[in-house]
Amino acid sequence: MRTLTGVGSTPLSGVGTARWYRPEAGLTLPDRPDPSAVDAVAELARFADARDAAREAIRDARDRAAERVGEEEAAVFEAHEQFLDDPELVDDIKAAIEDGTPAEHAVHDRFAAAIDQFEALDGQMAERADDLRDVRDRLLRALLNIGTDAEADDGAALADLGDLPAGTVLLAERLTPSDTAELDPDAVAGIATVAGGRTAHAAIIARSLSIPAVVGVGEPLREVEEGADLLVDGTDGRVVVDPDAESRAAAATDAAPPVTERVATADGRPIEVAANVGSEAEIAPAAERGADGIGLFRTEFLFYDREAPPSEEEQYEAVTAALSAFPEDRVVVRTLDIGGDKQVSYLDLPDESNPFLGRRGIRLSLDEHRDLFETQLRALLRAAASEGGEGLAVMFPLVSRLEEVDAAAEAVESVAAELAAEGVDHAVPELGAMVETPAAAFLADRLADRLDFLSVGTNDLTQYVMAADRENDGVAAYHDPLHPAVLRAIDRTASAAAGTDAWVGMCGEMAGDPALTELLVGLGLDELSMSAVTVPAVKNRVREIDSAAARDLAEEALACETRAKVRELLDG
Amino acid sequence: MRTLTGVGSTPLSGVGTARWYRPEAGLTLPDRPDPSAVDAVAELARFADARDAAREAIRDARDRAAERVGEEEAAVFEAHEQFLDDPELVDDIKAAIEDGTPAEHAVHDRFAAAIDQFEALDGQMAERADDLRDVRDRLLRALLNIGTDAEADDGAALADLGDLPAGTVLLAERLTPSDTAELDPDAVAGIATVAGGRTAHAAIIARSLSIPAVVGVGEPLREVEEGADLLVDGTDGRVVVDPDAESRAAAATDAAPPVTERVATADGRPIEVAANVGSEAEIAPAAERGADGIGLFRTEFLFYDREAPPSEEEQYEAVTAALSAFPEDRVVVRTLDIGGDKQVSYLDLPDESNPFLGRRGIRLSLDEHRDLFETQLRALLRAAASEGGEGLAVMFPLVSRLEEVDAAAEAVESVAAELAAEGVDHAVPELGAMVETPAAAFLADRLADRLDFLSVGTNDLTQYVMAADRENDGVAAYHDPLHPAVLRAIDRTASAAAGTDAWVGMCGEMAGDPALTELLVGLGLDELSMSAVTVPAVKNRVREIDSAAARDLAEEALACETRAKVRELLDG
Repeated sequence: MRTLTGVGSTPLSGVGTARWYRPEAGLTLPDRPDPSAVDAVAELARFADARDAAREAIRDARDRAAERVGEEEAAVFEAHEQFLDDPELVDDIKAAIEDGTPAEHAVHDRFAAAIDQFEALDGQMAERADDLRDVRDRLLRALLNIGTDAEADDGAALADLGDLPAGTVLLAERLTPSDTAELDPDAVAGIATVAGGRTAHAAIIARSLSIPAVVGVGEPLREVEEGADLLVDGTDGRVVVDPDAESRAAAATDAAPPVTERVATADGRPIEVAANVGSEAEIAPAAERGADGIGLFRTEFLFYDREAPPSEEEQYEAVTAALSAFPEDRVVVRTLDIGGDKQVSYLDLPDESNPFLGRRGIRLSLDEHRDLFETQLRALLRAAASEGGEGLAVMFPLVSRLEEVDAAAEAVESVAAELAAEGVDHAVPELGAMVETPAAAFLADRLADRLDFLSVGTNDLTQYVMAADRENDGVAAYHDPLHPAVLRAIDRTASAAAGTDAWVGMCGEMAGDPALTELLVGLGLDELSMSAVTVPAVKNRVREIDSAAARDLAEEALACETRAKVRELLDG
Repeated sequence: MRTLTGVGSTPLSGVGTARWYRPEAGLTLPDRPDPSAVDAVAELARFADARDAAREAIRDARDRAAERVGEEEAAVFEAHEQFLDDPELVDDIKAAIEDGTPAEHAVHDRFAAAIDQFEALDGQMAERADDLRDVRDRLLRALLNIGTDAEADDGAALADLGDLPAGTVLLAERLTPSDTAELDPDAVAGIATVAGGRTAHAAIIARSLSIPAVVGVGEPLREVEEGADLLVDGTDGRVVVDPDAESRAAAATDAAPPVTERVATADGRPIEVAANVGSEAEIAPAAERGADGIGLFRTEFLFYDREAPPSEEEQYEAVTAALSAFPEDRVVVRTLDIGGDKQVSYLDLPDESNPFLGRRGIRLSLDEHRDLFETQLRALLRAAASEGGEGLAVMFPLVSRLEEVDAAAEAVESVAAELAAEGVDHAVPELGAMVETPAAAFLADRLADRLDFLSVGTNDLTQYVMAADRENDGVAAYHDPLHPAVLRAIDRTASAAAGTDAWVGMCGEMAGDPALTELLVGLGLDELSMSAVTVPAVKNRVREIDSAAARDLAEEALACETRAKVRELLDG
């Protein structure tokens, strides 16, 4: 028995057989023939067939991901289809074929050039190289007749991640979001990666899928052999090679059972533990894991993968479906939060030099997409008057000025007046704001005065406080909410609201990490919202906490000078 | 006499004759001949000649701008030369010529397509369309034999902004930075524009050139006729048409004379009023206007427009030159602050999705460009031991973690040890940090504990607090340091440092606006650093201020809920 340590990402455990995923290997090209020996017309036909096959495979993958993971996560496959249709790439490949290059070599060469171009870039753009590789490999698999049922021998690429044998513990250098979205949670007992962090998109998707995961294990993972017996313990961040019977038994009972009742700290301070939901498919699992309602209902999935915005009726149906799943609980619906890294093809969003510092969230809703905002508010105000609608709360994203909150509240009033004039049943729900810009943290007292609640979005808040793009690997070290400056911004928010009637929640990734629950309770948060899979672990953790000790811990953390000191404090 | 109001940008006054600058007019193409009548070989030669002529004109413009305005501002012309050499654009033009299009039509058509492409983008990218127009017009002027001595008739484009008759008041829809950089301050008595704001690059350049300027006058300016008598009053933000004798006389004495002595508020609180310097040419004017030293010495100009980084010796010379100009005063040198919008060709900086949230400033100095940082520190530590070197202070840009300050201080120590081992004279200067990330504001108490000073950079601080790219017009409303959230960040910084030995300055654009001086004194700043031209006006303003009243004003501003209320308070 040998234990490797990494970062626990999905707090569940699983036992299975190691299988390496090496997408770079296994696609060997035949020797390059003499150009004069190549039948260009036949090769062009083969390339056309391969594109059709790849397109079909991508669409299947997208549909599986949309169903299993959510529309938002499935959107990566649309990018893959765009690469398949990239005119420059396609024309270059055709030209190479016409010059006497066999289709597979033409695909290989032109994609290699494009991959090199992307890899020369940094951060998010370099990550697109992984997407290009995915598309290239789909084309090559089609051209080389490697089907999804190919044998995966030691060290070779697994042809189809969606079709792994039950009891697989998947090992990889790193997984892309698209890799992860293809995994079947019934087959994959766990994931362990050499690189990556728990807030990466791939890790977030693994949590959505409830697959035990440990990321960032580093070099030692590379020594694990194909076929080894492995235990992946995502709660403690361990990978155990050849686990003994005791460890296996512990793992089997390790996954926290659902905790459906509401919880409070040991000294009786109630803490709401809610779920983040980004697709209709995530509603039922959230209820099953025992979430106290939905703390963040992302409405973007209603807008993706279509030709035009959803109707008022569709939005009404989606929101009332969420309300019905939580008849006794609150459902916090965030109004449309697009822009930044979230694009919607038919909305013609601006192409900006710094999209994370551009037109996003409430900025678009109050201005160029005011029509969408009003339609959404009509659906929400009607849902607030439906059965169980008293649990509805509405939250505005990316607030940075009080004027925005006032304008949004005026829009709610005006929509209410409109519905009243039409004789349509409606009610005005609780209204709140995301605290994800430093401006919102600095103005939290005023926001709490005029709103029913605030919810801290730690991913964006960290990004702006630290001035570090959360998708840029070059500044990954800056993207940790445990940096003292971020803790101070959260503290300022919670302290400012403490003297008011407003409650303060958190719906960023930080909220779902049981190792941080005591700190967050100590900072004064009333509600924590997270991936459904982590709800039981966080609820159990809340019950162990003493509020006064938690406050002491928070004070100590706020006095720390560095993230390393904060981590040391939490580990101690 | 008729008065139009706008935003005072350069706080000086000037009287002169209105001349409209309409770069869009005056370049009329001849009729398009039949393709068969075109001698393609001759046209290709004409195009080659035009490119040579345009290149020469761009290089001349660059050199003039570097000399008069500064290397940093002159860098826009390097972008122009890149457009001139853009392979796609050049190849397309050549292909069109080969197909029988005369050179001027080919240039016109291909640039039109490229301009359309850029204009479809937003913010900073759309602004590149103005640069493309500049380059196109240089090519067309060469092809149509319109020299720099062309007559500028009513409504026509002025051929060469650098060659305007003395006493010109230049009127324009808006000026690009490159337009403005070409202006001769001896010829241009003033600038008034329909659009634009006082923190735009063009406005900053006009201040560097000490040209009176009023921006954002709006529609009424369009009615001012060519040749009209105009008074531009950049202090009060007025454009007076047909000014009477009294107004002219007032304007003539309006430009504040230099104030060389140090100043204090009416009740005796000393306030340092220093200059921002971004080129060697700006040092002498700063001393002449009476600046109390240099509050921000940008070192980037030493790195631009060359093939390799400057040597230690060159940097030593530049810094000691600045120290000699201010023998009694402090000279605050900022270490290399590149990345974000500031690129240096030979350094191979990453291409990032959100460069303002990427690898910038101290992040690069402590990591991939550590060698440049150490060379710079060697030059600085040697300069600190030179005659007058006790006035040297060194400031680190984009600090967001205490670890960075510690690492920078360690680098200073290690360079000092290295110099000692070599027997080279050196001294350790005062060390400070820019406060331009929200993180630095949240950690200001700790930064002030370990550093000699802090300096608030309002442009970047506003950008990050408000989560709004300062170069994106789509979020221009967010980019105002008078937003209450930004004032609170400044207040937190100054308050945190108040109990320590560290002094707190400000070197962003905000510091140079006399209308804001009382507020800034009230917020507790000890030093204000600005374009040299505004030094006398701010010094005079400081003398009128009562500290207690200023603190009351600051408290009232901090209690305001919106930028509009802050403006109202300051105007009242």
